[in-house]
Amino acid sequence: MSRTFQPDWCEKPPKKGSYRSIFKWGSPKEFKHPSSEWFEMLKETFELTDADFKKPKQEGNEKVVIDHPIRLTDQQIQAIEAIAGKKNVASDDYSRVKYSHGKTVDEAMDLRQNRVRSVPDIVVHPRNKEDVRKIVAYCNEQKIPVYVFGGGSSVTLGLNTPRSGIMLVMSTHMNNLLAVNEQNQTATVQPGMFGPAYEEALNHAPKKFNVKHRYTCGHFPQSFEFSTVGGWVVTLGSGQASTYYGDAYDLVFAQEYVTPAGSFKTLEYPATATGPKINDIMKGSEGSFGILVEVTMKIFRYMPKNRQRFGFMFGSWEKAVAASREIIQSEFGKPAVFRISDPEETEVGLKLFGIHGTPVDTIMTFRGYKPMERCLCMGWSEGEKGYANHVSDQVTKICRQYGAMSLSGYATKKWERTRYKEPYMREDLMDYGVIIDTVESGVTWENLHRLHEGVRAYIKKRPATICMTHASHFYPQGTNLYFIFILKMVDLKEYRKFHDGVLNAILKNGGSISHHHGVGKLFGPLMEKHLGPEQMAILRTLKNHFDPNNIMNPGGHMGLDLPEK
Amino acid sequence: MSRTFQPDWCEKPPKKGSYRSIFKWGSPKEFKHPSSEWFEMLKETFELTDADFKKPKQEGNEKVVIDHPIRLTDQQIQAIEAIAGKKNVASDDYSRVKYSHGKTVDEAMDLRQNRVRSVPDIVVHPRNKEDVRKIVAYCNEQKIPVYVFGGGSSVTLGLNTPRSGIMLVMSTHMNNLLAVNEQNQTATVQPGMFGPAYEEALNHAPKKFNVKHRYTCGHFPQSFEFSTVGGWVVTLGSGQASTYYGDAYDLVFAQEYVTPAGSFKTLEYPATATGPKINDIMKGSEGSFGILVEVTMKIFRYMPKNRQRFGFMFGSWEKAVAASREIIQSEFGKPAVFRISDPEETEVGLKLFGIHGTPVDTIMTFRGYKPMERCLCMGWSEGEKGYANHVSDQVTKICRQYGAMSLSGYATKKWERTRYKEPYMREDLMDYGVIIDTVESGVTWENLHRLHEGVRAYIKKRPATICMTHASHFYPQGTNLYFIFILKMVDLKEYRKFHDGVLNAILKNGGSISHHHGVGKLFGPLMEKHLGPEQMAILRTLKNHFDPNNIMNPGGHMGLDLPEK
Repeated sequence: MSRTFQPDWCEKPPKKGSYRSIFKWGSPKEFKHPSSEWFEMLKETFELTDADFKKPKQEGNEKVVIDHPIRLTDQQIQAIEAIAGKKNVASDDYSRVKYSHGKTVDEAMDLRQNRVRSVPDIVVHPRNKEDVRKIVAYCNEQKIPVYVFGGGSSVTLGLNTPRSGIMLVMSTHMNNLLAVNEQNQTATVQPGMFGPAYEEALNHAPKKFNVKHRYTCGHFPQSFEFSTVGGWVVTLGSGQASTYYGDAYDLVFAQEYVTPAGSFKTLEYPATATGPKINDIMKGSEGSFGILVEVTMKIFRYMPKNRQRFGFMFGSWEKAVAASREIIQSEFGKPAVFRISDPEETEVGLKLFGIHGTPVDTIMTFRGYKPMERCLCMGWSEGEKGYANHVSDQVTKICRQYGAMSLSGYATKKWERTRYKEPYMREDLMDYGVIIDTVESGVTWENLHRLHEGVRAYIKKRPATICMTHASHFYPQGTNLYFIFILKMVDLKEYRKFHDGVLNAILKNGGSISHHHGVGKLFGPLMEKHLGPEQMAILRTLKNHFDPNNIMNPGGHMGLDLPEK
Repeated sequence: MSRTFQPDWCEKPPKKGSYRSIFKWGSPKEFKHPSSEWFEMLKETFELTDADFKKPKQEGNEKVVIDHPIRLTDQQIQAIEAIAGKKNVASDDYSRVKYSHGKTVDEAMDLRQNRVRSVPDIVVHPRNKEDVRKIVAYCNEQKIPVYVFGGGSSVTLGLNTPRSGIMLVMSTHMNNLLAVNEQNQTATVQPGMFGPAYEEALNHAPKKFNVKHRYTCGHFPQSFEFSTVGGWVVTLGSGQASTYYGDAYDLVFAQEYVTPAGSFKTLEYPATATGPKINDIMKGSEGSFGILVEVTMKIFRYMPKNRQRFGFMFGSWEKAVAASREIIQSEFGKPAVFRISDPEETEVGLKLFGIHGTPVDTIMTFRGYKPMERCLCMGWSEGEKGYANHVSDQVTKICRQYGAMSLSGYATKKWERTRYKEPYMREDLMDYGVIIDTVESGVTWENLHRLHEGVRAYIKKRPATICMTHASHFYPQGTNLYFIFILKMVDLKEYRKFHDGVLNAILKNGGSISHHHGVGKLFGPLMEKHLGPEQMAILRTLKNHFDPNNIMNPGGHMGLDLPEK
């Protein structure tokens, strides 16, 4: 067979009502396929031939049909309909499956096989916070579980409904930017607003809100297009520009919650010394304490013209890490985006960007930046013009001190244009039995190399497994490590065992079990081990305070209602 | 009487064992007296004559003698002695009074009259965290109240012991810098270490800890010399350079606590998405949840040579505020110290610095910066050289845009040299029946003018009352207002009524009841009103979790064990 064979990657939007339309990442009409270099790498790594890519398997094109009983009584459903309006309550098979599944690999594996573990009894699209308040009060009285769906991008089984009950979809109606306060530089937004709509409204604030400046939200996770502001806050996301703007945690100014124990809005102050901060206690509660119904976010002046892009190639991972630490601890300001890839990711990235095997590659190798040693670094600075220039100059100076070769902004621009598109490749790979998945971890500088080596050792111990790692969120005290692994596997049980091993390798080697993916039901069982019993008991006490009947996101979420060990 | 008369301000260190030795601010041997301009202002404002300053009143030079019973049994005292060592347990009158009083005006008024409201039964100086652990366990079993004393600089009745019991003094033995982690840029320190010793050790880290860089703690509250690292953390202090370095809240990397519900150390990660952050839940708990026994703080490179000082005079408070907001929202970096004084503080400040009535004053007035309109602005930038220069240049540019006149770094240097000394004046004034006190509040930009006007209106409604205000901690979302008032009053009840009125004016006008002084027992009764019942209930739930027997700092601290309204 000719070397120019390319699989017939799926380019059809999933059928309406199909399983595939639920698990497919992003827009139904968008696709991103592996480059031909990548295709060769996959074949080589997994000992596959073109023939193996002739016919996709288990594409999940079947229509969603389930036989899960609805356990709510007619009376209960009518009561909910009376609150939220009949047309905002759905109990059809498709709604029940769609709004209880995210983008966890487990879910894609299940849905490809038309396997549905749990669904809510009904799906409700609340119109406003008053609806939410009434529904939570009613469900608390009736002891009906309440789950919350934002954008559906969870990769932690965060949307599963093991105890059935009600799923509240926040993004259908509660998706508006309510106010921009120019003096306080804040935006008050409903939790179900998606990233692009939010950013667009802020960029055009002068027209829409009659203010002087254009603004940016500063938060651009890879899921940006398909995640909601509320989701960012309750799962503690991080954007690709977090090194400058901060994580979602840092961006929250005030929050309004509806809980079984009452509704409240945290106070709007830039800082206080009035005891432990309720605003912070609520962040990251993932629907287990209550429902975020409105949030006031910090915003930033939008000055895209000032962006200064840079790219470098380091001779080794050690040098890339050392330079990164020097950059973030030197106090000349901070780059907005800053990323370093380890040797394996660098090679795979060069393949992805089509640089592998080109004259640029030859020059790099000739100059001593050797494959499987060299490490790619990309990023940019933002802010006021002079600041952005100064940061970029200092980054360049330090990278050179650590022996890096400048790549100009070429690779960065390439990455920038496609940065939200990578997840689309997952479907192509899975169509041929190949899994691509990620885990990520917060880590101090001190533990970084140990974590990198320990997790890689575990993953690479398995034959024919690709493991790429980057760090992309930088703090003076450390960074994150983001592990991407690719392997050929179709059995979920087998995969779960492998994945658990990765998580345990993280814990054993000094990493946190989540830097920005949240906890969900996937990492819930590890929380007690991670935090220790004393600290887990604090979270359980809070849970019990807000939700004594355990109706909020029950069934193992964050490990809060697992039996104590 | 000649205009050159100056009172015989006290220059004698307080007598050993006297009440004055307890309430006097700072070092026994240091003093700062009102300038002659100030003295004239006091006489004029309060309609006093030189004769009124002939003889100080109620100086509190008497020896401390109390007749408060010791309620602990001999057996209980022996048990504590067995844990901490006999020589680390004291029950003499002086220890019991000294270690249960801070620097609240109420306390000075009481002690000047030899009035002691409450004292602990015994004072214990734990040697290490093991001592603390055993003492808390024993006291929990025996239901003995446990209070904590750090540096003793509380101005919120934070150290009072209304239920007697045991006072733990953290600064006697537990006052060492244990480690500097250069990779993570953190310092692990015992809670009882005072500011200067901590900063000194960090400045000389290369010698003491064999690291490459010199470091700074970045936290310089006015109480710096007489407050402890643990105190900063548990009361949520802010340093004078917080605009760049962050508040104490931001500086804490990990904490170790001993509580009746167990001991734990929060995890060391630069960021995580593993639910609500225990590290943040513990900050600001003021000894009500448990005892901070070790803390790992973020530290910063020490580069004092890069400091760029600036000073400006604005034509009005409105212009000073508008320029400040523009500076902090412009994203060119942040000044470290930044302060603006309102018109009244500006005039009093010019008197304090000896500028009032000089040719400089004349020039300012001539150029249109008129008394009781003009506003002083001071500060400096720090960090890497190019960054510090850029920030200073941009600050200057914006101040000029808002019509400010540059004063060079003169006033700033003068302030810098004496910035920890102002509290010493309190004793001089009180010796002649004049109170100087402060309250401060966190506030958004939107509410700033309302808060300033509302609180001033309340204070100035009282005849013959000086009210100076500055903002000194800046955030993109707002700042703090620091109100200093001077009035002639000797009756504590009358003063309490006036002070309560100030606090209510703050709450009514959109300010927080504390920006960085903490809550203590002084603001405790206002907490429920401030936070609202739902949020207060969260703090009470945490309190009850950690301390079900209510032995930790009981008796109204933070309003946690006041009857619910």
